[in-house]
Amino acid sequence: MPIDARAYAAFDAENPLGPWAFQRRDPGPDDVAIDIQWCGICHSDLHVVKNDLGGTRYPLVPGHEIAGLVAAVGANVTRFRVGDRVGVGCMVDSCRQCAPCRAGEEQYCVPGFDQTYGWPDRHADRSGQAMTQGGYSTAIVVDQDFVLRIPDALPLDAAAPLLCAGITTWSPLRHWKVGPGSKVAVIGLGGLGHMAVKLAAALGAEVTVLSTSDRKRDDALRMGAAHFLINSDQAAMKAAAESFDLIINTVSAPHEIAGQVQLLAKDGTMVMLGLNTEGLPVYPLGLLWRRRSVAGSLIGGVAETQEMLDFCAEHGIACDIERIAPDQINEAYARMLKSDVRYRFVIDMSRMPKEALAE
Amino acid sequence: MPIDARAYAAFDAENPLGPWAFQRRDPGPDDVAIDIQWCGICHSDLHVVKNDLGGTRYPLVPGHEIAGLVAAVGANVTRFRVGDRVGVGCMVDSCRQCAPCRAGEEQYCVPGFDQTYGWPDRHADRSGQAMTQGGYSTAIVVDQDFVLRIPDALPLDAAAPLLCAGITTWSPLRHWKVGPGSKVAVIGLGGLGHMAVKLAAALGAEVTVLSTSDRKRDDALRMGAAHFLINSDQAAMKAAAESFDLIINTVSAPHEIAGQVQLLAKDGTMVMLGLNTEGLPVYPLGLLWRRRSVAGSLIGGVAETQEMLDFCAEHGIACDIERIAPDQINEAYARMLKSDVRYRFVIDMSRMPKEALAE
Repeated sequence: MPIDARAYAAFDAENPLGPWAFQRRDPGPDDVAIDIQWCGICHSDLHVVKNDLGGTRYPLVPGHEIAGLVAAVGANVTRFRVGDRVGVGCMVDSCRQCAPCRAGEEQYCVPGFDQTYGWPDRHADRSGQAMTQGGYSTAIVVDQDFVLRIPDALPLDAAAPLLCAGITTWSPLRHWKVGPGSKVAVIGLGGLGHMAVKLAAALGAEVTVLSTSDRKRDDALRMGAAHFLINSDQAAMKAAAESFDLIINTVSAPHEIAGQVQLLAKDGTMVMLGLNTEGLPVYPLGLLWRRRSVAGSLIGGVAETQEMLDFCAEHGIACDIERIAPDQINEAYARMLKSDVRYRFVIDMSRMPKEALAE
Repeated sequence: MPIDARAYAAFDAENPLGPWAFQRRDPGPDDVAIDIQWCGICHSDLHVVKNDLGGTRYPLVPGHEIAGLVAAVGANVTRFRVGDRVGVGCMVDSCRQCAPCRAGEEQYCVPGFDQTYGWPDRHADRSGQAMTQGGYSTAIVVDQDFVLRIPDALPLDAAAPLLCAGITTWSPLRHWKVGPGSKVAVIGLGGLGHMAVKLAAALGAEVTVLSTSDRKRDDALRMGAAHFLINSDQAAMKAAAESFDLIINTVSAPHEIAGQVQLLAKDGTMVMLGLNTEGLPVYPLGLLWRRRSVAGSLIGGVAETQEMLDFCAEHGIACDIERIAPDQINEAYARMLKSDVRYRFVIDMSRMPKEALAE
């Protein structure tokens, strides 16, 4: 039987999000039905709501940092039971056939993974939704292979943003083999950045935060950073030249990176995580004298996401969050645009209006 | 006793190069004195002559693709004898203490390697030259640790450009582990590009040349390329999307790379070899969906250069050259700026004017 869901949705690119009612598909044999408790707000939600990348169809329920409890399972589901603490990230399915999928890198699925919201819904005949709808809602139905287990040691609310902000920073730290002895810098102490600091420090790296102001110095040090550098401090920047093996760049607005590339050691990499739609000027001379790289990285695979959640539980790591009610989402978006959040907004679904608008 | 050298030198950034006479240092115990037979013309010679990178001091004798015969050796020199066929590339010394130097990556020497021309001469007290002077000259004196052996199987004239164009393309092919099964693209079929094609093909890669026109198709295929793609051919570019493990970008003028980055497979790298002084716009979105990288690479270490020379001898690879006399250097520069060279100018030092201008 289809499942009633209440949600906050965008109805166009200009107006505030508002309440909306719709239905989730009747769970199939491989499906897990989840009562969503919390959903984080990611900067990319705003990109899609505003149609920055093109192709957004409305109504759109954003949200891909989902934490909740299993409400029902299909006949083939053996790994989850009703009541289990689970999460869903940016993916709800993939082709499962291509080389990246077979290698557990579903995020690089060749035909493209099924995004949690705003993607053609392969179950449209049963969901009645042309596009997938995300986690700013009370319920979701997801194939068991894309459901994560949230360890008991992690609070559900502070774990929710791990499903995107956590894995997006974890995957490059692992891919570029960060560990004891590594020197890692993090540009931008926001939702992604604060997780990069915590995870890199827990992996044993010496972490430096690069920021535009001194405002977040204490936070950075508390999260595990050993150093805090202000970009405009020329002397400090010069002293840090050629010192980092990896720079995690979390800034999702156009910005100058030439000076920061100079902070990379030989064979160092700056990895871009933000969904910048504009080009950033890269200077070949700055790269070739030290064989530096500028790379990009996109979330992480399902197994890698579980690895990250287990690592967080083991090391007592979660997101720093600010809890909000659904009717504060629009205000949260405005504050996010001003970087006024420490460090992730998480929506409390128990405060969803009971009488959402009819579909 | 100091050694008389006749040369072609730049006297300022605007005027043509002309004849010049100067002296090389009296060879010390670790030095090899070389009668230069041939010297290649590299695009970076022009950059330094024109002071594009700043800091050029005149008179300047360019040239770092040097091939010749040993004329004399110092008391400590055991690896070379008079008459040996030898080469000198972009480096004539380095600190020998830093981590890269100890690892045989002298090109990334932390304080900076001694460039073959236009670099403060650490033997200034004996050479009488404040700055090092390069290979557009009849003689040079170089520490034995920076002298390469040119195998008998390689002609000296066609081997000369291997010392820069050869090693500059060899090093990234090795660093990014190109071999059988690799798919490599080369952007720009010039001095560097034509060597990249030959070396990558000899290493077993499937090589594609990307060019702006069809002009060099036959040459590319003859050199070992399996495919030839024209950048403006949208259908061919689309068909090649996500296919290359490594793209060797040899273009040294500002250019658009966004479309070509899309040709990289997952985890693929575009490596920039050209001395672009301007920024190239890189789109983070183009990088992160496939964890692509844009990197730089600079020449190669001494041991790696010897490895490349030996590989070339073994595989019958050398540069395609056009031989010129010293008084054709200025014309060669003009033609190089129009990409009118197949594929490297090499200066014949036996045609150096006997009565060069006094110092």
